[in-house]
Amino acid sequence: MKTYLDCLPCFLGQALRTGRTAGIDDEGLKGLLDEIGGMFRDIALEATPPQTARLIYGKIREISGNVDPYLQIKQESTRQALQYLPIFRQYIEDADDPLLMAVRLAIAGNVIDFGVYGEVDLETEVDRVIAQDFAVCDDGAFRQAAKAAGDVLYIGDNAGECVFDRLLIEQIGKPTTYAVRGVPVINDAVESDAVAAGIDQVARIVSSGTDAPGAVLNTCSDEFRRMISGASLIIAKGQGNYEALSREEAPVFFLLKAKCHVIAHSLGVAKDDIVLKRSDARRAGNDLPAKSLDMTDK
Amino acid sequence: MKTYLDCLPCFLGQALRTGRTAGIDDEGLKGLLDEIGGMFRDIALEATPPQTARLIYGKIREISGNVDPYLQIKQESTRQALQYLPIFRQYIEDADDPLLMAVRLAIAGNVIDFGVYGEVDLETEVDRVIAQDFAVCDDGAFRQAAKAAGDVLYIGDNAGECVFDRLLIEQIGKPTTYAVRGVPVINDAVESDAVAAGIDQVARIVSSGTDAPGAVLNTCSDEFRRMISGASLIIAKGQGNYEALSREEAPVFFLLKAKCHVIAHSLGVAKDDIVLKRSDARRAGNDLPAKSLDMTDK
Repeated sequence: MKTYLDCLPCFLGQALRTGRTAGIDDEGLKGLLDEIGGMFRDIALEATPPQTARLIYGKIREISGNVDPYLQIKQESTRQALQYLPIFRQYIEDADDPLLMAVRLAIAGNVIDFGVYGEVDLETEVDRVIAQDFAVCDDGAFRQAAKAAGDVLYIGDNAGECVFDRLLIEQIGKPTTYAVRGVPVINDAVESDAVAAGIDQVARIVSSGTDAPGAVLNTCSDEFRRMISGASLIIAKGQGNYEALSREEAPVFFLLKAKCHVIAHSLGVAKDDIVLKRSDARRAGNDLPAKSLDMTDK
Repeated sequence: MKTYLDCLPCFLGQALRTGRTAGIDDEGLKGLLDEIGGMFRDIALEATPPQTARLIYGKIREISGNVDPYLQIKQESTRQALQYLPIFRQYIEDADDPLLMAVRLAIAGNVIDFGVYGEVDLETEVDRVIAQDFAVCDDGAFRQAAKAAGDVLYIGDNAGECVFDRLLIEQIGKPTTYAVRGVPVINDAVESDAVAAGIDQVARIVSSGTDAPGAVLNTCSDEFRRMISGASLIIAKGQGNYEALSREEAPVFFLLKAKCHVIAHSLGVAKDDIVLKRSDARRAGNDLPAKSLDMTDK
């Protein structure tokens, strides 16, 4: 997905929120916003939002000297989500359609996103998503792909959310590789967050190598890019991964909640809608801008 | 009121919205946001928000060549508000406290603000404000000041809102000077908007001379500054005038709805609260930063 003009004010708000979380004082925050404002000229709208966000969060890291401002918040998110694990597992057991319930829960977990929200009430949000209709629900194709796939490449998003991903991985029941970010960015999961959520009990955890809040392929490791091009089924969680991968020709299913108007517009849904969407970029004859998988390191 | 860090992302969003209204294409809008991002370094947080907004809206004027992007919207706002005039006049006649009802209506009219909102449903908003408790209500002092004043300096805010101001001017019943902006900025009222609302039937209309969306005194005419320093009662409508005048030692009553968290924080109220507030800057012993009236043209 390209960067929209509306992303620029949002990036600035995110920088302010994260800069505060990183402990930067008001004078430093003004300097941070000045720097980011000055960077706008170098932001191409053709780039995906996480490509740009990567530069911004890098600047916050540089100014604050804090490489992981959300560390404690991430640990707390995981702790809270784990408390609900038995309840959510029961939801799946009791469901008429356990796979779709596991998909719903995986999407519900996607609200643990400090890039977009502040605190969230997890239980309320889960109850809302469980009762909500899907705006896009390619569940037939998803079921088929999950059944046919020899293994699954599951690209995680936020810490805490990993706990919910674990339930979907269990439901699919195929050998799974779970990809996390290469370094901490916002509250996105890195390896330690996935381990804390118990993902290591159901999947092999790998780093995508990226420092962007989304699997921007030219910022990922060669190994991860090879995984993408060889995968028979990819599950990509959250907005950042959708933004990074929506134009890539790969067998991806996107699971997310459309948390802002820009994403909603790009998906043709309303804000706050939930989506299980097969990538259009693979389908022949679609009119979305498709780009072949770029293996070069730009 | 000083500019808060949170104002910067908001300014950028306002610029995008107004730039679109001014008919700037996407490439031009990107250039506009780049320019404004580059201007952040020159924005001092000690300046009031309308002092900064003035520079931003000036840039939009320069890039778009459109000196009044909200012209049609302003005319339509006035037309709509005039339709309700007999109904609102009846509200005042039927009220136990006609003056306070007129104050409420004047605040309700303050939602016609394209700097903060897009379209508004006027009738719904009026009904909401009429039923709403004041978060700050210096009505005793206001009544006394209105009774004692020989005349009133009333500083208007948005076009359309002028229609509501007319009712309050009628209620107070004192010779009134109604100040509008010197040039069009956002949907703020200029002379023609005040005339279209019928303000000329109840007051003498003057230009403050400013090109800021608020009566920033060092951008106003000498004549207007003399009016401010000689006034026995000043009514200042809306956020922009509050932001511009909250630190000035003058007999001001602010009538507004706190439309954003920053203003709400500055006033010690919640977002969406309504306020009839006597200026603190005049009171002896208050601990708010007070600044004497600056008559120099900085």
